[in-house]
Parts: sequence; structure tokens; C-alpha cells
Amino acid sequence: MTPLQFWFEFASTYSYPAAMRVEDACRDAGVTLEWRCFLLGPVFAGLGMAQSPFLLNPVKGAYMWQDMARICAAQGLVFRKPSVFPRGSLIAARVVIAHPSEPWTGAFVRATYRANFAEDRDIGAPETIAALLEELDLAPAPILAAAQTSQAKAKLRAQTEDARALGVFGAPTAMVGSEPFWGNDRLDMAIASARGTV
Amino acid sequence: MTPLQFWFEFASTYSYPAAMRVEDACRDAGVTLEWRCFLLGPVFAGLGMAQSPFLLNPVKGAYMWQDMARICAAQGLVFRKPSVFPRGSLIAARVVIAHPSEPWTGAFVRATYRANFAEDRDIGAPETIAALLEELDLAPAPILAAAQTSQAKAKLRAQTEDARALGVFGAPTAMVGSEPFWGNDRLDMAIASARGTV
Repeated sequence: MTPLQFWFEFASTYSYPAAMRVEDACRDAGVTLEWRCFLLGPVFAGLGMAQSPFLLNPVKGAYMWQDMARICAAQGLVFRKPSVFPRGSLIAARVVIAHPSEPWTGAFVRATYRANFAEDRDIGAPETIAALLEELDLAPAPILAAAQTSQAKAKLRAQTEDARALGVFGAPTAMVGSEPFWGNDRLDMAIASARGTV
Repeated sequence: MTPLQFWFEFASTYSYPAAMRVEDACRDAGVTLEWRCFLLGPVFAGLGMAQSPFLLNPVKGAYMWQDMARICAAQGLVFRKPSVFPRGSLIAARVVIAHPSEPWTGAFVRATYRANFAEDRDIGAPETIAALLEELDLAPAPILAAAQTSQAKAKLRAQTEDARALGVFGAPTAMVGSEPFWGNDRLDMAIASARGTV
């Protein structure tokens, strides 16, 4: 069985419904999940886009919010359009890159997405991330310190380069071996592929 | 119950798996289907894109072909990457615009998509369209003549403008009332919405 790498970015809208279910879905399927945080900004820049496609194409952007509301409702998720989009994702990404497989990594990922897309909290502010860690009964100071080392910063840059090298052009992307599955809409197919049932 | 308007373009890749099943799916659900052919070129131009997003973004384009192969396989459809993309869709679109609700309209739509995406035939050539009509036991001459009138040409331009006015930015798009459902991935949700079960 092949592990499923879940490539995600905290500012990414459709990563929210996918991130909220990927850990349970992989566990139910007996598939190993690997969290792979990266930054969309450099990936979009490498593709010639100065910002999110949803801002470059406002018609598509307006549709996306409408669609997000439907998708989250269908998945039983609270959704509130963030008052700022895209939100800064750097600190949260560095927390994950410095702690990619802790027992609490999945819970932190979900808490951060919930903060951004259900609670309209500013996940770009260190105080918000500290509060989210506290809500998970974790001590924020050492975790945030580890996230701000030059090693963590370099690792996030390198992993974002890895995303580009793998052909990742958007988030979320599930990689099963060398095969990409882009979007919340392909998560189930990716899990089936990782199980070897496709 | 609200009719489902199926907005499509013959050159559009993801319109193929959607077009092949939309008529049966609507019939099974008791939903009235309205075929709405339009041209993506003017829609993309209106959004500042000189050509298909899959050509503007080759990484996404390469992924799309991989994804199309998977989606068609999952749907039991033959898929062969067209040797030319995008294929000229003008003549086929004018045939539909001049005959939007004939008993054979759906069969012609499916035959044209099959020709483009399963048989690698040049649907931009009038001879191909004539052959497809003959394969459906229809006399090509009067149908092609009706498709080439200035009235049909004007109607296709007007319907393409209607698409833009509705907020259509890609194909296929299912419209249920004023609510758009973009992509083959949202067809089932659109049908459920038209049934009033969502």
C-alpha cells in the first residue's frame, strides 16, 4: 500500500473541506497519511500568476465562495467566508513543517482551517496560532520557537520547491506515488488509489 | 421542479464525460434538460485569457489529460487524447443552436463528443459533422444549411453573451435557475438541486 501525501496550504479554500476529513478517511481506509505543507504563492509565481487565480479571475472567485458554501454544507462543516482572503499562512505552515508527524499535527491543521474558514480568525497573527495551540492543551512557546528557526524556514522553502517539482499547481493535492490528485473533489479517488482498489 | 440548463462547448474536455451522461441522468431524476451550446473563446477573452487555461498553464494542462483518462475510465467511457486541442467547435455548435431540441439533439451532441475525445476525429471539418449526422441516419445537407444561416450564427453569438451574463466562466456549467454548478464534478449536485432534494 502506498502512503498518501496530502499537500496543502492554510490559505487555500478547498483545502479546508479536504483537510477536515483526510485523516479520518485515510485511517478508515488503512492508508498512511503524510502531511505536506507548502506555500501556494511561490507555486503560483512559478506559473506566471502574481496572486490567487480566484483574485485574478473575479467571476471564478465569486463562484468559488458560492461553491465552498455548498460543499461545506454537504460535508456538515461550518463555513463563514473569511473577511480577509487569502489569509497569511506562513506561521501556521512553519509550525507544521517543524512538527510534521506529532500526535497533535492533524488536530492543529484542522483547528487552523476551522479558525480561518469557520471562525474568521486571523491565522496570520502569531497570537492566533498561540491561542489555537493552547486550545489543544499545548504550550505555544516552544512550538512557535521551533517554527521560527532558520531550519524550519529553509525546510518550508525546500518543501515548496518539492511541490513544484512534483507538478503540484494548486491545493489541496493528494500525491499517491508520482500520481497527483488535485482538489477536494479527487480525495476519495486518491485514497482508493493508495489502497490499490483503483 | 426547475429545468437544468446544460451549458457546454464541444472543444471542452470535461464537457465530454458530463455530456455523455447528462440526458440519462436528468431523465432518471425527472428533471427537464435544456441544451445550451456556447463558445468558450469569447468567454475566456472576456476574462482576459487569450486561450484555454490548459494551454496558458501547461502544468495544469498536463494534469488535466491524466485526470480525463481516469475520469473517463471510472465512467466507462473510451478516451483518446485528441491529436489537436482545442478542436474547432463552431460548426457543431451552430448545428445545435439551430436544432436545440430535436429528438436527435442529444444523440448528435454525444456523437460529436465521442468523435473528438474517443475517436480523434476532426470535428472542426464540415465533412466530419456530415458523417456524424449520416451515422445518426439524418440527412446532413438541410441540417448543415440551417446551421450556416446568419440567424444561427447570430443566435450562437447571443447565447455566448447570455453565458457570460449568467456568470459562466468554463464548461460544462449546469445552471439551475440562477445558480451555476461548474464542471463534470458538480453535475450530480446540480441535478439534485433541480429536483429540489438539496
